[in-house]
Amino acid sequence: MKKTSLALAAASLLAASAAQAQSVEIFGLLDLNYLHVNSDGNGSINKIGSDGNLSSRLGFRGTEDLGGGLKAGFWLEGALNPQDGSGGTTSTTNQPGGSAGSGGFTFGRRSTVSLSSQYGELRVGRDYVPGFWNLSHFSPFGTNGIGSSSFLFYPVPSGARITHVRASNSVGYFLPKLGGFYGQAMMAFGNNPSTAGAKSDDGNVTGIRLGYEQGPFNIAAATNRTQNVTLGNYTQRNIGASYNFGVVKAMALWGENITGVQKTTTKLIGAHVPVGQTGQVRLAYSTLSAKGVANDANHLALGYVHTLSKRTAVYGHYARISNKNNGTAFDLGLGVTRPGGSSTGYEFGIRHSF
Amino acid sequence: MKKTSLALAAASLLAASAAQAQSVEIFGLLDLNYLHVNSDGNGSINKIGSDGNLSSRLGFRGTEDLGGGLKAGFWLEGALNPQDGSGGTTSTTNQPGGSAGSGGFTFGRRSTVSLSSQYGELRVGRDYVPGFWNLSHFSPFGTNGIGSSSFLFYPVPSGARITHVRASNSVGYFLPKLGGFYGQAMMAFGNNPSTAGAKSDDGNVTGIRLGYEQGPFNIAAATNRTQNVTLGNYTQRNIGASYNFGVVKAMALWGENITGVQKTTTKLIGAHVPVGQTGQVRLAYSTLSAKGVANDANHLALGYVHTLSKRTAVYGHYARISNKNNGTAFDLGLGVTRPGGSSTGYEFGIRHSF
Amino acid sequence: MKKTSLALAAASLLAASAAQAQSVEIFGLLDLNYLHVNSDGNGSINKIGSDGNLSSRLGFRGTEDLGGGLKAGFWLEGALNPQDGSGGTTSTTNQPGGSAGSGGFTFGRRSTVSLSSQYGELRVGRDYVPGFWNLSHFSPFGTNGIGSSSFLFYPVPSGARITHVRASNSVGYFLPKLGGFYGQAMMAFGNNPSTAGAKSDDGNVTGIRLGYEQGPFNIAAATNRTQNVTLGNYTQRNIGASYNFGVVKAMALWGENITGVQKTTTKLIGAHVPVGQTGQVRLAYSTLSAKGVANDANHLALGYVHTLSKRTAVYGHYARISNKNNGTAFDLGLGVTRPGGSSTGYEFGIRHSF
Repeated sequence: MKKTSLALAAASLLAASAAQAQSVEIFGLLDLNYLHVNSDGNGSINKIGSDGNLSSRLGFRGTEDLGGGLKAGFWLEGALNPQDGSGGTTSTTNQPGGSAGSGGFTFGRRSTVSLSSQYGELRVGRDYVPGFWNLSHFSPFGTNGIGSSSFLFYPVPSGARITHVRASNSVGYFLPKLGGFYGQAMMAFGNNPSTAGAKSDDGNVTGIRLGYEQGPFNIAAATNRTQNVTLGNYTQRNIGASYNFGVVKAMALWGENITGVQKTTTKLIGAHVPVGQTGQVRLAYSTLSAKGVANDANHLALGYVHTLSKRTAVYGHYARISNKNNGTAFDLGLGVTRPGGSSTGYEFGIRHSF
Repeated sequence: MKKTSLALAAASLLAASAAQAQSVEIFGLLDLNYLHVNSDGNGSINKIGSDGNLSSRLGFRGTEDLGGGLKAGFWLEGALNPQDGSGGTTSTTNQPGGSAGSGGFTFGRRSTVSLSSQYGELRVGRDYVPGFWNLSHFSPFGTNGIGSSSFLFYPVPSGARITHVRASNSVGYFLPKLGGFYGQAMMAFGNNPSTAGAKSDDGNVTGIRLGYEQGPFNIAAATNRTQNVTLGNYTQRNIGASYNFGVVKAMALWGENITGVQKTTTKLIGAHVPVGQTGQVRLAYSTLSAKGVANDANHLALGYVHTLSKRTAVYGHYARISNKNNGTAFDLGLGVTRPGGSSTGYEFGIRHSF
Repeated sequence: MKKTSLALAAASLLAASAAQAQSVEIFGLLDLNYLHVNSDGNGSINKIGSDGNLSSRLGFRGTEDLGGGLKAGFWLEGALNPQDGSGGTTSTTNQPGGSAGSGGFTFGRRSTVSLSSQYGELRVGRDYVPGFWNLSHFSPFGTNGIGSSSFLFYPVPSGARITHVRASNSVGYFLPKLGGFYGQAMMAFGNNPSTAGAKSDDGNVTGIRLGYEQGPFNIAAATNRTQNVTLGNYTQRNIGASYNFGVVKAMALWGENITGVQKTTTKLIGAHVPVGQTGQVRLAYSTLSAKGVANDANHLALGYVHTLSKRTAVYGHYARISNKNNGTAFDLGLGVTRPGGSSTGYEFGIRHSF
């Protein structure tokens, strides 16, 4: 009797505890590194940096079963700079001048409420734009560190770098898995009044992504457009694919960033090569065609990630961006000032998730 | 034996886990909506907004039993804007110019340490002023969204909107439940030095609230005053009552906002009407008498809240503010520019707590 | 059978729950008080303040066993002002102008990833400088409240008060306990490019601390230097010791703050005197020799801390700083304007940890 009641008491207390635990999950990741960059004409920099392998973050999330196959969920996630403890900013308007945070912590990485069922997921708040995901999934270095192809990731001019990753004031819909098909659509608002006239649609975003994954094969295409009268509308388009041969996972990615009449086009090929149970070599080569908007350039990156455990890994990356002519030059975090010059760097770091 | 020891181990581990869980509770709420407002002379706005039904927040709280009936507790709670992930600001001085946060997350909703016993609760830090609570409890839409009577809630001029909800640097006392009586008193400091002269008392707040609740009946009166030499002292006064007839919960509220010589007076009647197990219709009508300080106006609101679960609900609100003459006009979030014009809006949203 | 399966289910669910609980620990402390300070020539101030006994904070931390005696860990901890809910700032560069946060919450108290083993701990991110710890450990009032010897803690000029407590962009190494010896070393970066010329090393920090603790006796010496061409390099040096006689724990501390050619030297003696099981009297007397850089001064502090529980205590402090001549005067939070004047204060407060 006593045994049973103890077990029952334990089970019921546990249920209460588990219920609470399920209500909010705290999660996060810290990525810290030592970074050296040398850029032609502009000397070098040595620093303690972050996010070479994955983006540092802290978040709170949870789900609730509403019955009948329907679930509600929330997700609050913010960026932080672990080298100094400051937080990442967000944008309230998807437009220049909408930045908020000033180094205080915000939930600018993701802030959403969701309703999901067998028919897909409806998501409202601040979230990734559809055109971001291929840059992350079909690039060996994702969008982090000196290994990521910054000219693929960033629009020109720099003033347009607002909605190339995320949009605020958004409504998104995610398809359920249909065979191998997946996809999402987003609409976001600049939240301007009609009296803003020509600018009343500034910051409005529309986007879509469609993909297909079957066994070792994965392919997806995406695009999104952000309206802006002053800068010119910003459009991001890309197609990526990967095939996992086992001894190597090959990746290819094509992408465009268009701001008004300024267009840059990037092609990337790369690979993940597993080394034993815990190692992974990463290779990426990408070229930029910028048509007078900026330099043509290419980017070569080589890296190794060594997993210490489920939650911890160390990494080392080497990369080089070579600019080809006299326009706006690309670099690895320290400006290139010699025409046609290059930027070379390496970083060693640790990432730890929780 | 094995069964017993397993059960015992489970129970003791559980106790440890539960103890930890009790030390800090994470809680919060996200409320996101689609809002449309049309204001005479000033066009319209469509946006993704928040807090139409309840205020979005994230917090940490806990209590500790000190023995002998005495408890200590802490409460840290901050506002956030889930449509973009930015945080809400706070005021460090209860005076103009004391705003802190800049869009980074703060604990500006509540930041307190408490000692409580059978004799009541002593609370120190940043907390709600006594005059806020009736506006929230005796108004069908609380102080959220287009359904709330903004002219009841907000003092004129807008520069005085600092301590109408909360005060920093405060000491509060809450009565224990005495029969049906309840109440609280607050004193807060502007934290100025004596050398500030005439302004040395600016930001000092005093307030009191007393109420009585018995069965279906509830009534309370409250007032608080914030000293300010430049704006004129700000005083908030209100009396609210409700009676729950079962088929309808009726509410009435009278309130004044006085800043120096500028006084506005509001009267509100409203109701909650339950619809089945999970629905609630909300109705509110309020009138503003502003005596040359601002427009006279009235505000009509109709809403429906549908509960999906203990933690999740959807809602839809319609509201209209009609301004009566030529002074400062009130609106639903988009300024009215035609003299005597009105502001009309609707919002659909979801709120999810955790 | 049923009993066993229940117990097993409980144990396994529990393991999952405990695993999650161990991944992230939330912790914090709130310290709130009433403070009165009177300063010669400058009147007085009465306020609700904070951090009289210990620093208010909120944090998230955890560790992961990597096997083979190696552990990974993370620590995110930020300051907050519980009287108003605002957050503490951080510095991104260890230099003037690097402040980030603007009152939003940051993880400026500590933001680190660690690898530790029997050979010590490697720690990367934002952390305390080695020279800080003796000021905290060998002073009866630590570095908090009016009881702390501010002229020991703070460099002159005030513009140099950036890295006297913490440094960003740092790599630290902590010795394992070797007999009674303990110690740490830190190197931090200002993260400037080489093109910054003479200022390229600004914000670079190097520091070391070594101590020995055996039974009731503890002694440690530390120093750190922050490079800055404009202000002059900043150096912090100190030696502290304590001996616990049981009826009294005696402390002595010597410290220097040097900014360029400006040097201040402080000597402190003090004691903790236990009173029963739950009380502690605190006494401290310190003198400042500022050699024309600022006033010579002395500081007397008397306090009592009464523990209500493991997590909660109340305290009362009295202190007086007496300035000796005509230079920059020190005070308890309200400036002294009469040459050679004094600043006197008392504070009553509560601290509550979780």
